[in-house]
Amino acid sequence: MWMTDQKERNLSLLTDFYELTMSNGYFDSGYREKIAVFDMFFRSVPDNGGFAIFAGLEQMIEYLNNLHFDEEDIAYLRSKQTFSEEFLDYLRHFQFACDVWAPKEGTPIFPGEPIVIVRGPVIQAQLVETMILLTINHQTLVATKANRIVRAAEGRPIMEFGSRRAQGYDAAILGARAAYIGGCVATACTLTDQMYGVPAVGTMAHSWVQMFPSEYEAFRCYAQRYPGDCTLLIDTYNVLKSGIVNAIKVFDEIVVPAGYRPKGVRIDSGDIAYLSKKIRKILNDAGYGDVRIIASNALDEYIIRDLLVQDAQIDSFGVGENLITSKSSPVFGGVYKLAATLEDGEYIPKIKISESVEKITTPCFKNVYRFYSKENGQAVADYVTLHDEVPDLSKPLTIFHPMAPWKKKTLENVECRCLLEPIFQGGKCVYQSPSLPEIQRYCKEQLDTLWEEVKRFEFPHRYYVDLSQKLWDIKQQLLNEMSESHL
Amino acid sequence: MWMTDQKERNLSLLTDFYELTMSNGYFDSGYREKIAVFDMFFRSVPDNGGFAIFAGLEQMIEYLNNLHFDEEDIAYLRSKQTFSEEFLDYLRHFQFACDVWAPKEGTPIFPGEPIVIVRGPVIQAQLVETMILLTINHQTLVATKANRIVRAAEGRPIMEFGSRRAQGYDAAILGARAAYIGGCVATACTLTDQMYGVPAVGTMAHSWVQMFPSEYEAFRCYAQRYPGDCTLLIDTYNVLKSGIVNAIKVFDEIVVPAGYRPKGVRIDSGDIAYLSKKIRKILNDAGYGDVRIIASNALDEYIIRDLLVQDAQIDSFGVGENLITSKSSPVFGGVYKLAATLEDGEYIPKIKISESVEKITTPCFKNVYRFYSKENGQAVADYVTLHDEVPDLSKPLTIFHPMAPWKKKTLENVECRCLLEPIFQGGKCVYQSPSLPEIQRYCKEQLDTLWEEVKRFEFPHRYYVDLSQKLWDIKQQLLNEMSESHL
Repeated sequence: MWMTDQKERNLSLLTDFYELTMSNGYFDSGYREKIAVFDMFFRSVPDNGGFAIFAGLEQMIEYLNNLHFDEEDIAYLRSKQTFSEEFLDYLRHFQFACDVWAPKEGTPIFPGEPIVIVRGPVIQAQLVETMILLTINHQTLVATKANRIVRAAEGRPIMEFGSRRAQGYDAAILGARAAYIGGCVATACTLTDQMYGVPAVGTMAHSWVQMFPSEYEAFRCYAQRYPGDCTLLIDTYNVLKSGIVNAIKVFDEIVVPAGYRPKGVRIDSGDIAYLSKKIRKILNDAGYGDVRIIASNALDEYIIRDLLVQDAQIDSFGVGENLITSKSSPVFGGVYKLAATLEDGEYIPKIKISESVEKITTPCFKNVYRFYSKENGQAVADYVTLHDEVPDLSKPLTIFHPMAPWKKKTLENVECRCLLEPIFQGGKCVYQSPSLPEIQRYCKEQLDTLWEEVKRFEFPHRYYVDLSQKLWDIKQQLLNEMSESHL
Repeated sequence: MWMTDQKERNLSLLTDFYELTMSNGYFDSGYREKIAVFDMFFRSVPDNGGFAIFAGLEQMIEYLNNLHFDEEDIAYLRSKQTFSEEFLDYLRHFQFACDVWAPKEGTPIFPGEPIVIVRGPVIQAQLVETMILLTINHQTLVATKANRIVRAAEGRPIMEFGSRRAQGYDAAILGARAAYIGGCVATACTLTDQMYGVPAVGTMAHSWVQMFPSEYEAFRCYAQRYPGDCTLLIDTYNVLKSGIVNAIKVFDEIVVPAGYRPKGVRIDSGDIAYLSKKIRKILNDAGYGDVRIIASNALDEYIIRDLLVQDAQIDSFGVGENLITSKSSPVFGGVYKLAATLEDGEYIPKIKISESVEKITTPCFKNVYRFYSKENGQAVADYVTLHDEVPDLSKPLTIFHPMAPWKKKTLENVECRCLLEPIFQGGKCVYQSPSLPEIQRYCKEQLDTLWEEVKRFEFPHRYYVDLSQKLWDIKQQLLNEMSESHL
C-alpha cells in the first residue's frame, strides 16, 4: 500500500512567516496580479563533491497539489493581527495558479543552474519558497550523500539504517526514500517500505542475544523462527571466540537441516577489516562460502573505501547516522531568488548583487540544457539560456566560463536535451512521477554519463555550467547598471 | 490552536524492521510474558559540550499514547511473509502496557546516565526503541545546540530561522519547538506557532525589495502596510550607501508620522561587526537610538561570540541552518540497551560488553539522583543507583569515578532529587506535560544550577555522573563473569 503522507497532513503553514507578510503586502499594495519568476539553485555541493542528485520532486508536487488554508489556519492567521481580511479571504479560496519546471528526480545537478523555476502571481510564487527549499534541500542532500556511499562500496549493496539518529520523523521516512534514489537497496525503516515501497530489512539487535541464557540459545531460537532468512549478529560477546562459532553451530543444526542456506552474519563493532577476513575464512572452511558478511559500525564513504583498500571481506554494508544526516556535510544550501517580473508582456530581468561575487544571482526567466557527446554519450556541459532560447547545434557552439569568459570551449558533434520538465501549468500538475525503482534506475543511467573525474570524492573536476551569450550579456548589463546606481 | 501532530498521522510503523522481527520472535518463542528493562542513554555531548538538554518528551508521549496497528498496517505486515498470524493478531489488539520514566523536558542531562527507562513485556519494550531514540535524539540535539547559541548571545534574543534548510518537515516544525526549549525567543516557522505556540516572526526577503522599482519604494510600501511592526532588510543593494539611508527616510516619512516607532533594520550579508557599528551610529544620529539592529548571516555560537568580542552593535540574531541541523555536530547519539530482565520476581542484570571500554553498558533496573549543594543550590553530581535505592544523606556520602574508582569525593550538606519522573504506569500516561514557556523557564532555572565550568563551549569541566557502590559492584561482578565465559 502506497500512501501519500501529505494527504493526511496540512503543511500549508509550514512556511516562514515572512512569506505571509510579503504575500499580504503584495496583495494589499496593487501587486496582486503581478507575475514573477523565481529560481531555486545552489552554490556548492555537499562534501565538496562534483555534483548533487536532485530528489524530493514527488513531495514538492504533493505539497503544491495540497496547498490550502482551512478555517483553523485562517483563524490562527487572523489572531496574529497582521493580515487584512481581504487577504485572509484570498487564502480561504486559494487556488495554486503557477507554472513550475524541474528536472526529473535522480538527475545529477550542478551549482549555478536553476533546478526549480516557479512562474506565477508573486503572492503565490513567494508563498511556496520555504516548502520548496525544505523539500528539495533535504532529499537532495540525502540522495547525494547516499550515492557517495554507494559508489564507495563498488557494487556491494548499501542498506540505510539511520532512522534512530535522523533529525525527526520525515528525516527518517523521506531520508530513506532519498537514499534509495541515490542507490541504496534497502532501509531499516518499515514505514518507508509501507509508504514508498523501499524494501525494509532487519534481523536482530544485541538485546535479542542478551535476552537469552546464552548466545547459542539466542541464535538457535532465531534460526528456528526464521530459517529461510537467517542473518545472525555475532558481536554481542566475542566475534571470533563465541559469535562465529555459535553461528556455524546453529547453521549446521537448524538452518541446513530445515532445507535452507543461511543468509549471513553481521558485525557491528571491532576492527571490521581484520574480523571480516577471519570470519570469511572460518565460514569458507565450514562450507559456508555463500554466507554473506554484513558490516554496520559508524560507516561512511571514506571508511568503506578504506576497508575495501584493505581487502575487507564485506558483502554488504548497513549505514546509519552518517548517511541519514549527511553528517560530514549536513546542509544542502539551495536558495530561491527572484529572477524576473513580467511588465506589459515583457520579462524584466532581476538580479541580486552581493559583496561576495559567487552570491550574485543570474537574472532572467531561464532554461537549462545538457550537452552530450554523440561519440560516447558523455555529458559535456550544462548550458543556461533564456527561457525561449534553443541552442543551435547545426554549427560548432562556443561556450565560455561565466566567471572567466576567456576560458572557452567549442562543442562539436554533441546533442542536447532540456533538463527541466514542465511540472505544473497554470496550477495544474502535468507531470507523472515515475516509480521509485524507475527513478533509481534513471539516476544510475545518468551518472554513467558523467566523467569519472566529476565523480571523485575529493577535488573533483568542476563540470561546466555556462551561460548563453545572450544571458551573459544581460547579466553584465545589469551588473553595470547596478554598480552605477548603488555602489 | 494547539494541535497534536501525531493524532493526524499513524507513525506506528516508523520503526526499524528488526524491532518487528524480534518482537515476533519473542512472541512465538515463549517470551511473550517476559518483562525486560531498557535504558536510553548517551555517551558524548554534541560539539564536545559539557551537557545536553533533554527534549522531545511530549512527542514521545504522543507516540506511545497513539501506538496502534490498523488494518492497513496489518495487511502490509502480512505481505512481508515474515510474521505469524498470532503475532499480527496481537498487534491488531495492541495495548501499550509498559512503565516509562524520564526527566522533565528542559533538564540538563549528562553522558552515562539513563534518560529514558522502559519496563514491560519485552515484545513491547523492544518495539518502541526506534521511535523513542528518534524523538529524543532529534529534539535533544536541537535544544542543546540552540542553548549554546543562546548563551553565546549573552541575553540578546535569538530567533530560529532555519526551516528551509532543515532535514525534513518535522525537523523544521519540532526543531523550532526544541530551539524554544533551549532558549530561542521566536521562530520563522509559522506552523510551529500554530501547533506549539512558539511566536512566529518575519518581515521581508530580498525579493520584496527587488520587486519594486527602487529600494525606497519597497521600504515605503512595507512601512505603509506595517507601520507598527516595521523592520526593514537593508542589504539588498548597498547597506551604507543605500539601505540605511532609505530606511531612515521611510521611518521619517511614514512610520513616525503614523504615530509609531520603527522596530528595526536587518542585515544578512557583509561584515556584520563593521556594518553594525556604522549603522548604530547613523541610526542614533538620526534620532533612532531605540531602533534595533538584527543580524542573520550564517551565524553560530562561535561567530556570535566573536562578533560580541568585537563590540558588534547587534540587538538580536536570526540563526538558520547552523542551529536547525546542529551543523557542526548533527547527531545526538542516544542508544537504547537492555539493562535487566525479570525472572521469578527478581531483576537479573544484563550487560553489553565491547572492545571499547566506554561502550560497555551499566546493567540493572536503575534510578538517577542529582545532588545539590545546600549552601548555594549548585548541582554537584549525578548519582546512578539501583531502582529502589535511596541515597542516605544523613551522613557524608563518598562518591567515586566509575572508570577510575580511586578518584573520590565526599558530599556533605547536600540535598538530592530524583531526576526521573514516572511518565507511563502500566501503559497509562501519568504525566502532564507543562506548557512550552514553562519548559523553557524550567530549563533556564536548571542551567543556573550548573557550574560555569560545565557550560564552557570548549573543554568544559566533566560533571560527575557516578554509580552507587551497589550498582558498581554488580557491574564489576558481571564484567568478571563475562570475561571468564567469553573473552
